[in-house]
Amino acid sequence: MKNLEDRLAIHDLFVRYATALDDGEVETVVACFTSDAVLESPAIGGIQGKGAIRAFAERFAAWREAGTQFRHLITSLAVDIDAGGERARATAYLLVLISKDNAHRTLPPGRYECELAKQRDGTWRFRRRVVFHDHDYTLDGP
Amino acid sequence: MKNLEDRLAIHDLFVRYATALDDGEVETVVACFTSDAVLESPAIGGIQGKGAIRAFAERFAAWREAGTQFRHLITSLAVDIDAGGERARATAYLLVLISKDNAHRTLPPGRYECELAKQRDGTWRFRRRVVFHDHDYTLDGP
Amino acid sequence: MKNLEDRLAIHDLFVRYATALDDGEVETVVACFTSDAVLESPAIGGIQGKGAIRAFAERFAAWREAGTQFRHLITSLAVDIDAGGERARATAYLLVLISKDNAHRTLPPGRYECELAKQRDGTWRFRRRVVFHDHDYTLDGP
Repeated sequence: MKNLEDRLAIHDLFVRYATALDDGEVETVVACFTSDAVLESPAIGGIQGKGAIRAFAERFAAWREAGTQFRHLITSLAVDIDAGGERARATAYLLVLISKDNAHRTLPPGRYECELAKQRDGTWRFRRRVVFHDHDYTLDGP
Repeated sequence: MKNLEDRLAIHDLFVRYATALDDGEVETVVACFTSDAVLESPAIGGIQGKGAIRAFAERFAAWREAGTQFRHLITSLAVDIDAGGERARATAYLLVLISKDNAHRTLPPGRYECELAKQRDGTWRFRRRVVFHDHDYTLDGP
Repeated sequence: MKNLEDRLAIHDLFVRYATALDDGEVETVVACFTSDAVLESPAIGGIQGKGAIRAFAERFAAWREAGTQFRHLITSLAVDIDAGGERARATAYLLVLISKDNAHRTLPPGRYECELAKQRDGTWRFRRRVVFHDHDYTLDGP
């Protein structure tokens, strides 16, 4: 099947990103992105580059250290690989659950819109990862 | 692997159906079904055919226009393709989240039971899509 | 793709396990495990072997008979197959929803850590399945 390996690699990238973010594995998160990648979300606004992405992941790692456990649940992944095989777009649904003080809550459901690039070593990375939530929220809870 | 392309195509059909329904893309929803397909659910009873399915999708599109965002989360897809390769059955879990007025709620969890048919052009469509929810609910909320 | 059939078979094992547990299909649950498999969870402690696993599945079947419907939603599956191709580790996120008396609730989100073994007939089974939840809970509700 055309692009099957790429499809599975992009699926695995989403899983690796979400679980590393939740587990506080900062460098694994950083390695999911190209060096000039852009992240946008209502919680963080827009950031770009390795330093900003590392700081973003460190914030989650610090929350985890302090006892707040995030779970980024990703479903309904759809992948569209360009004819050239070097660029892709992917969308997915996102449901974030947060556990703290022996209770849990859900953030408003949302979705990812992502642009990806295949690297020279054959791996895929996010070039741009935008998250939308279906209503407003604040993260001051964690 | 036997039927691998069919398996992935059926996965993609579920994702396309759910995201199009949530996004208010009426014609994309209609194109997920055969012309004489049957839909059954506790919210709509049983309907059949393109006109009824279009009206079903238009109801979701209108809710979305009015500010109610559905998210049909699909997990645990299991696909069983007939020996002939032209018919399949598929089951999946369904969790629907609804955002409105800056809050969200979940419908009772449930599952899909679907029958599918491969078309002459090689694409798969739903012939019958039945949804079950684990307890009663009403949609008058949206 | 290397190990593609194994990857899909392990995905299907997770789906079969979760849906059989929820559907009260005791023998299907038992057949997901090797004869000396270990299960660990905060709700059950640690158990080992077919008899204990059957009793575990029967407890869910009895709850279902009594009107409590579980849904084990599994997402973010990551599979790591050993070089030899006969052993694997897999992790996944778990979100359990429980419907009873016309209402539903979620257990604290969690994750599976699993060890798997390929059998002589080519099928995969769980050797060890450990579940972690992000905060404490009791099952006396169902």
